[in-house]
Amino acid sequence: MAQKQTLFIVIAGCGRIGAFLANTLSRRGHNVVIIDRDDAAFSWLSGEFSGFKVEGDAIEFAVLKQSKVEKADVVVAVSEDDNTNLMVAQIAKTLFQVPKVIARVFDRQKEEIYRQSGIEIICPTAIVGDVFFDAVMAQRSAL
Amino acid sequence: MAQKQTLFIVIAGCGRIGAFLANTLSRRGHNVVIIDRDDAAFSWLSGEFSGFKVEGDAIEFAVLKQSKVEKADVVVAVSEDDNTNLMVAQIAKTLFQVPKVIARVFDRQKEEIYRQSGIEIICPTAIVGDVFFDAVMAQRSAL
Repeated sequence: MAQKQTLFIVIAGCGRIGAFLANTLSRRGHNVVIIDRDDAAFSWLSGEFSGFKVEGDAIEFAVLKQSKVEKADVVVAVSEDDNTNLMVAQIAKTLFQVPKVIARVFDRQKEEIYRQSGIEIICPTAIVGDVFFDAVMAQRSAL
Repeated sequence: MAQKQTLFIVIAGCGRIGAFLANTLSRRGHNVVIIDRDDAAFSWLSGEFSGFKVEGDAIEFAVLKQSKVEKADVVVAVSEDDNTNLMVAQIAKTLFQVPKVIARVFDRQKEEIYRQSGIEIICPTAIVGDVFFDAVMAQRSAL
């Protein structure tokens, strides 16, 4: 299958993960818009970032419109708040028909509820918890 | 090599990851002590947890003594603060000679500095960032 070379990605939330994604995707030539309520959060962005910054609340329709979400190939919701991420994801999926929507959800129970909704849920607690667990257990064979 | 069946693990920080580890390790029959400055944090622990809770600051020698760190097979430092985690890890390694010490460090630059110190560093930013990046890129072949 022919790959689309350049993606248009809207990222809601410019914390460590949002900024990491924005910097990395931007460096690789993809088009990125990153949204945060707090202008100071954009200081996480590096010189590699050549996309657009939108200051505003990503659960507001007007802010998503301004970010051109309707043209996005992927929306990634990575604010610090699970409910905000799920709300942004649902708006992107249902109102803007974004093909791929990814939300960060810390609460594993919410993860289960939303897994069937067409939104891709990434649960850092599960991923990182497993890494720590494996690291602790690796000690057992060394003793 | 014969495996030691039951580990004694001291966890500093009872947030999502600390509590997840404490619950999981406890359920599997390991001996766990979990430390947090804030008593309310222990509400993350489930009914599965059968270990000890120590309220106090894990960078204090007396708190680590009370937690019996000198007998620990593994110390895991997962407070919210990188510097605290690195300090706890260094004390556990150098003063208490704990065989395995694992610290959570969000800042990738600190990760590099400490990787040679005998402390195992787990950087959630790197792990979770890569998972998100792969999820975004998976969309490219679908378009």
